[in-house]
Amino acid sequence: MVAIIMGSSSDMVVMEKAAEMLKYFSIPFTVEIISAHRTPQLMAEFAISAKAENIKVIIAGAGGAAHLPGMVASYTILPVIGVPIKSSNSIDGWDSVLSILQMPNGVPVATVALNAAKNAAILAAQILGTQNEEIAGKLLQYKEELKKDVESMRTENNRKSD
Amino acid sequence: MVAIIMGSSSDMVVMEKAAEMLKYFSIPFTVEIISAHRTPQLMAEFAISAKAENIKVIIAGAGGAAHLPGMVASYTILPVIGVPIKSSNSIDGWDSVLSILQMPNGVPVATVALNAAKNAAILAAQILGTQNEEIAGKLLQYKEELKKDVESMRTENNRKSD
Amino acid sequence: MVAIIMGSSSDMVVMEKAAEMLKYFSIPFTVEIISAHRTPQLMAEFAISAKAENIKVIIAGAGGAAHLPGMVASYTILPVIGVPIKSSNSIDGWDSVLSILQMPNGVPVATVALNAAKNAAILAAQILGTQNEEIAGKLLQYKEELKKDVESMRTENNRKSD
Amino acid sequence: MVAIIMGSSSDMVVMEKAAEMLKYFSIPFTVEIISAHRTPQLMAEFAISAKAENIKVIIAGAGGAAHLPGMVASYTILPVIGVPIKSSNSIDGWDSVLSILQMPNGVPVATVALNAAKNAAILAAQILGTQNEEIAGKLLQYKEELKKDVESMRTENNRKSD
Amino acid sequence: MVAIIMGSSSDMVVMEKAAEMLKYFSIPFTVEIISAHRTPQLMAEFAISAKAENIKVIIAGAGGAAHLPGMVASYTILPVIGVPIKSSNSIDGWDSVLSILQMPNGVPVATVALNAAKNAAILAAQILGTQNEEIAGKLLQYKEELKKDVESMRTENNRKSD
Amino acid sequence: MVAIIMGSSSDMVVMEKAAEMLKYFSIPFTVEIISAHRTPQLMAEFAISAKAENIKVIIAGAGGAAHLPGMVASYTILPVIGVPIKSSNSIDGWDSVLSILQMPNGVPVATVALNAAKNAAILAAQILGTQNEEIAGKLLQYKEELKKDVESMRTENNRKSD
Amino acid sequence: MVAIIMGSSSDMVVMEKAAEMLKYFSIPFTVEIISAHRTPQLMAEFAISAKAENIKVIIAGAGGAAHLPGMVASYTILPVIGVPIKSSNSIDGWDSVLSILQMPNGVPVATVALNAAKNAAILAAQILGTQNEEIAGKLLQYKEELKKDVESMRTENNRKSD
Amino acid sequence: MVAIIMGSSSDMVVMEKAAEMLKYFSIPFTVEIISAHRTPQLMAEFAISAKAENIKVIIAGAGGAAHLPGMVASYTILPVIGVPIKSSNSIDGWDSVLSILQMPNGVPVATVALNAAKNAAILAAQILGTQNEEIAGKLLQYKEELKKDVESMRTENNRKSD
Repeated sequence: MVAIIMGSSSDMVVMEKAAEMLKYFSIPFTVEIISAHRTPQLMAEFAISAKAENIKVIIAGAGGAAHLPGMVASYTILPVIGVPIKSSNSIDGWDSVLSILQMPNGVPVATVALNAAKNAAILAAQILGTQNEEIAGKLLQYKEELKKDVESMRTENNRKSD
Repeated sequence: MVAIIMGSSSDMVVMEKAAEMLKYFSIPFTVEIISAHRTPQLMAEFAISAKAENIKVIIAGAGGAAHLPGMVASYTILPVIGVPIKSSNSIDGWDSVLSILQMPNGVPVATVALNAAKNAAILAAQILGTQNEEIAGKLLQYKEELKKDVESMRTENNRKSD
Repeated sequence: MVAIIMGSSSDMVVMEKAAEMLKYFSIPFTVEIISAHRTPQLMAEFAISAKAENIKVIIAGAGGAAHLPGMVASYTILPVIGVPIKSSNSIDGWDSVLSILQMPNGVPVATVALNAAKNAAILAAQILGTQNEEIAGKLLQYKEELKKDVESMRTENNRKSD
Repeated sequence: MVAIIMGSSSDMVVMEKAAEMLKYFSIPFTVEIISAHRTPQLMAEFAISAKAENIKVIIAGAGGAAHLPGMVASYTILPVIGVPIKSSNSIDGWDSVLSILQMPNGVPVATVALNAAKNAAILAAQILGTQNEEIAGKLLQYKEELKKDVESMRTENNRKSD
Repeated sequence: MVAIIMGSSSDMVVMEKAAEMLKYFSIPFTVEIISAHRTPQLMAEFAISAKAENIKVIIAGAGGAAHLPGMVASYTILPVIGVPIKSSNSIDGWDSVLSILQMPNGVPVATVALNAAKNAAILAAQILGTQNEEIAGKLLQYKEELKKDVESMRTENNRKSD
Repeated sequence: MVAIIMGSSSDMVVMEKAAEMLKYFSIPFTVEIISAHRTPQLMAEFAISAKAENIKVIIAGAGGAAHLPGMVASYTILPVIGVPIKSSNSIDGWDSVLSILQMPNGVPVATVALNAAKNAAILAAQILGTQNEEIAGKLLQYKEELKKDVESMRTENNRKSD
Repeated sequence: MVAIIMGSSSDMVVMEKAAEMLKYFSIPFTVEIISAHRTPQLMAEFAISAKAENIKVIIAGAGGAAHLPGMVASYTILPVIGVPIKSSNSIDGWDSVLSILQMPNGVPVATVALNAAKNAAILAAQILGTQNEEIAGKLLQYKEELKKDVESMRTENNRKSD
Repeated sequence: MVAIIMGSSSDMVVMEKAAEMLKYFSIPFTVEIISAHRTPQLMAEFAISAKAENIKVIIAGAGGAAHLPGMVASYTILPVIGVPIKSSNSIDGWDSVLSILQMPNGVPVATVALNAAKNAAILAAQILGTQNEEIAGKLLQYKEELKKDVESMRTENNRKSD
């Protein structure tokens, strides 16, 4: 199971893409609002018990001084995927990117691109797919679809000058 | 009392300046290594009990994805002063500055300049000085010394072209 | 008493949040337009007399080459909280953040996040709360409300995939 | 098995840390020089056959316009961990960070901090540890060691002013 | 012949300017959607066979972690002109600029300004014009038109205060 | 006399503010479209003859890779004031700021803030005012008006909490 | 007369170049240490009386949150040339550049490149040269020397491949 | 023939790599010091006559506010390759990169990576190689050597954990 967490319901518009993508891969998941700064104890409890709750991968989205992914990672040995969110009053997204990416030695966060909740879900599927051939199969199928998307774009757009 | 905390003994070279400055103001203090990412529970306990331990202000130094000041602030109502530290592998200090400064609504961190542990201590003295005339007096005296430093630089350096 | 100052009435839309938050904490305050660059002498007089006027903390908002917080700090021993404002023609807010944050040794400004006037007021309350149990109590209550906000978001948003 | 790849022998000084850390976790690994720009076909072959070669996770280090992690990810469904390397003539590391992190929808790279090859290995262990209790046990033990490191720093450094 | 390639049909709005400009110079061209990350093998085939297909210059537009120009350059000895595209979720265009520009020694990409597909086409014409006097003549004519544009702006705008 | 020049009529919306401000100071001026990149010879002629044409100060606005101010400065000994313009496809204005500001030793450009054509005109007046008491008088009057603007803002906005 | 001011004797190593260059132009000057943050009243007095002291141009160097040039400009109608200094703990010089350059409407600072005290002096000479033919003559002579420097570099370095 | 130009002999240490690489390809070249800011007329003459002098490609290196590549491009229809140089007092190389890259519509500069004079020469060879099979052959051979370099690195470095 994958847990998708975020600090506020305002992040849902971005993080919903992770849920949609996990559905595509038929990977069960939970979605939870957990704030590092407003509910730090809840965050600690969540992170400490996550493994026992049969969670395999945690996807954590956060904006600004984004501490949720890194702090969850400090409490658990599960892989944590961080999604930097470009929130209002963000300094162009740099703040969330750097607060998630630049973790110190010993406590990694697997960071994806700004607002890239979809890619976080694909990465979670890849992680689970290392041991699950069904998910691996769906990942191969998804790669085929990406290719087909390009192919149909090609049909519509490729051209030669006269 | 002021608590000076930092994530690693490698930050001591920067944070020592805060201790020296507090000594100047005769403000009692403690110095502690507390890591947000390696000892999150210790950090939580420290922050939760700080007020009861008669700590009035917390100075927290951290580099990279610097979560210590903000996470301590999430657990306490004491003012937390954050010192961004330019650690090795930092991206020019931007990572620590932004991870400390850009806290979300509700949980402020009083951020000072990169590596400015000395200013963090002066700010702590100013906070305590709002209610303590002895400290306020020392702050006035310190301001005079700053002025005198400039005046003696002036004596040595001011000049006119012939 | 807390003084909220800013360089122009155009900053009011941001700085109003500080006033609202201080009202929440029942902390008396003044709001004043003072420009570092257009009324430098007024600024000097304000800063020099602030302590005698029973001001305990100064919140100063400014955009662009934001000199108001730092210059006020140069004239007073009161704690000065700087709010970087993302004004029009700002270079993405970097100019105001850096002109407020990067103060030299000796003259700190307690910098909060871009446009974070609300957090400036909370920080002011924390500073006063170090000596005032009533304010401290309201800060605890506010922290509880932050938690409850998250809890009600959780009720509405937490879910499991089927 | 984990594959550690990099574009040049000059990256070895950084990437060696990944090998050392995998040894700590007793995870078998290969180390290979593969250049996206100088040996693109070799890279393609490596990435296409990696899964069949029983590789579970790929750690790819690269500097400058760092295409190795993302291109390998385009050829495989294995999780790819990208290590941005601050090479000479890099623009402060921003180039490698952004070329690895900002992957488009569909093809994620799990990015770690600048030069953080050690964290890449820990993340690889976390990925394998989702299905392997022995590795999970070692990760718990490693977390304990991180804590003990801090505790011994505390013994040496914690102090009170007189 | 010039080949204009891009990773997605969403880039067409920018890259169309390259096609228009090549028409101006009467240089034959093809337009193709080729994705480095979704169709890496197609990309490799395209790049490997480009020279034999009588392509002289390749113009490649890409956004985010923009690998298309650099990877095509790794497979061919033809000059590759890279157009950084400011896509949605880009970090202000810095990601595409740096991923295209900062190529390692041995494999250059001729990078033009953000979204500057028109300039890419002019550069392609300049490259072909080194050996083709007809194109060179059109380039001279184009330079004249640029000058005339300014002259007509001057007629309308130049003025003196009274 | 002051010359206001810019590379394109699209810059007029920004540069018009310089003309308005010079009118305020009753300083005669010309407005001209001169492009460094499209009419380099015209630019050279303009710059070489400017002093003989009784121009005292040149205000040059430019965006992107902004070469107009610096190149004009290379041809004349008149003071050149550069106005960085945030054009479309600019990388947040950084390109024009840095291309104007970072001139090499020997050839200065007096750079003002992004889009700050008004300040360029005030600076021109200050330069002329060093030798012209009438202009100096108007500058003093203008400073008074700035102060009065703040004072009227104060009347409307200053307040105390109840 | 030109006044060269700076906040600390540590800035002298950079600002000395301005003095040397003014000597070249035989322009009389003063050198003074004046700190915006440590001696704000002295700064105000200096700026207010500068014009009466027969100063025509002020060159002000400052690092970090560099308020000296802008604050002096707020007190005087003389042209103020700002020299951003890359001090230790600066964030790569961006802080001083932006705090000097991004002045609000009404109060310009003529900003030169990072550490470019030499160019500040040349700009001061250009300002004085608008009304002083002797200085103008020396500026022409200096331009000739710049050209001769290049010419002698050409003699030594220009070459053809065999 | 290729012309290698640069603004100062201090750029030679970087630009020499272009000369070496052109020798490898047996492409005749000239090396010249031409400064946009100190010898603008010489620059104009050079650029205007370059085509008639049988120059096919111009490689121009410059640092800081780097105007040489773009200004040369404004005078000629030859392809101009710009090499941003990280000079002293550069703001981390961003200034030269942006002043060369961000050319306006109509006047492209083919920009290569920071200090990448070697790549500029390879790009020049690729441009000439579009019409010259001998050079094309050498480019293919060079690509082979790049591959062999990696292969010999592989022999020395590839390994498996025990």
